[in-house]
Amino acid sequence: MRIANVDGRASIIVDDSAYVDIAEQSSGRFGPDPRSVLEDWAAFREWSENAELGAGRPLDPALLRAPVDEPRQVFAIGMNYLDHADEIGSEPPQSPSVFTKYLSCLSGPYEPIRLIDGSCDWEVEVVAVVGRHAYQVPAERGWDHVAGLTVGQDISERSRQTAGPMPQFSLAKSFPTFGPIGPWLVAADSLPDRDRLTLGCSVNGEIVQSGSTADLVFSIPELISRLSHTLPLMPGDLIFTGTPAGVGAGRSPQRFLQPGDVVESWVGGIGRMRNVCVAEAGAAAAPVVAAGREPVR
Amino acid sequence: MRIANVDGRASIIVDDSAYVDIAEQSSGRFGPDPRSVLEDWAAFREWSENAELGAGRPLDPALLRAPVDEPRQVFAIGMNYLDHADEIGSEPPQSPSVFTKYLSCLSGPYEPIRLIDGSCDWEVEVVAVVGRHAYQVPAERGWDHVAGLTVGQDISERSRQTAGPMPQFSLAKSFPTFGPIGPWLVAADSLPDRDRLTLGCSVNGEIVQSGSTADLVFSIPELISRLSHTLPLMPGDLIFTGTPAGVGAGRSPQRFLQPGDVVESWVGGIGRMRNVCVAEAGAAAAPVVAAGREPVR
Repeated sequence: MRIANVDGRASIIVDDSAYVDIAEQSSGRFGPDPRSVLEDWAAFREWSENAELGAGRPLDPALLRAPVDEPRQVFAIGMNYLDHADEIGSEPPQSPSVFTKYLSCLSGPYEPIRLIDGSCDWEVEVVAVVGRHAYQVPAERGWDHVAGLTVGQDISERSRQTAGPMPQFSLAKSFPTFGPIGPWLVAADSLPDRDRLTLGCSVNGEIVQSGSTADLVFSIPELISRLSHTLPLMPGDLIFTGTPAGVGAGRSPQRFLQPGDVVESWVGGIGRMRNVCVAEAGAAAAPVVAAGREPVR
Repeated sequence: MRIANVDGRASIIVDDSAYVDIAEQSSGRFGPDPRSVLEDWAAFREWSENAELGAGRPLDPALLRAPVDEPRQVFAIGMNYLDHADEIGSEPPQSPSVFTKYLSCLSGPYEPIRLIDGSCDWEVEVVAVVGRHAYQVPAERGWDHVAGLTVGQDISERSRQTAGPMPQFSLAKSFPTFGPIGPWLVAADSLPDRDRLTLGCSVNGEIVQSGSTADLVFSIPELISRLSHTLPLMPGDLIFTGTPAGVGAGRSPQRFLQPGDVVESWVGGIGRMRNVCVAEAGAAAAPVVAAGREPVR
């Protein structure tokens, strides 16, 4: 089952061209706020499995927003694929290496990426969305606390990320539009092989990243466990689970995003985002959803 | 003017022993949610300057919570006093060094600090609360975007903070109760000398930190400017502005918090917090507000 944020309202994707509004279909029991569906996830899932959904409305991809746009907590995991740790010259971590992406960077699956001067890089990731409060949860129960998964880009400005006496992961990865996620959330319990999902990224059609979550250093349920042994995870919290090899900074010569570049990001069984890069100065003049009329899958 | 979170409701502190409920006094125009007052800060300030407040209710300090308990974004600034950068052996940063404290660590001004195994340390800080959306603001306009200031502790578990290939600032400083703030927010425009506030911390009555915001590497308006040149700041966002010298990790021999230790933290003209340290295992059995009946100033 796919749950989307259509113009600010929690929605169920009926098929690739139609959706229903959750608040309307449930007579106000769930939604309309996207996060509120996650606050009551178990009840929502039960309802959604049994509901007779009305006729779908035509889905305008231009109206798709970040599936969760006001999370309380955003966790992003560094160096969580061995091949990526290797390409950036880092030792693999002994425990998850955690930073945040500030929520003001979150954007929709077809919104432009507003580049800033410097070295903006791509990082496709699987993003896990928490659906049930988690504190000190064992890894074998980790999936119980995940509502669903979506596709994410952890856009990163490399020169700022590494400047100064301490790495600036959180800030250098939080410029506006540096966190596109979407196009929707797929319920984790509806994914047949959720521990080995393919993910990839292309720039202007050239595939630059290709991986599988089977190669995560810390798997999704392991991340739920490890994070929840520090602090409580709350419904709607996002976990950017890390990126596989192939980022621009790891290439020789290095390659960074340029205005006009088209970044496509996908996770098998979930969906595909398409984000066009624009120069920051031109962002105000650019359409809000540059590629919104493109096919969404 | 002092604005507090009394048992989840935005309140004005009338004097040290009395408060009024903002939603009641304003017939629902502002509050009751503490963050909502900040969303409409300019109008609230105008109203509060002219309102004839009704009779105050007795203030039970045990009911004081974090003045903002659901901020969208929390920024914490590392090494923002030269004497502290020096004591931990770091170069002073050329730009603000930013991490987050996850909101689940926020707690009230008299709640216990639940220690975890390891090396838990104190860091008294002035915390700035954003009251007006800020994006690419010049430093000379920085104060215009600050609603008020409060006292904060950036409790830090040092062994986890420095373990691994990358410093783990955000996670090691985000265990539950590692972010007490309070006892209230003081409106920035009501502070006579807001650019040179004294701040300090004592452990069991011994003063361990003593400083002045006049010595900040990046002043509060400068932080508003610098952060807002990366991303938009939103009403209710918190900025932990950094700690002066005197932390336990910088001492010889090093000294860390122990169960039973009493941490007092103050900022001149704002107020004083008092947090008793408890062992994590005993946290459930400890009173929620260990020192709540103590005088609040």
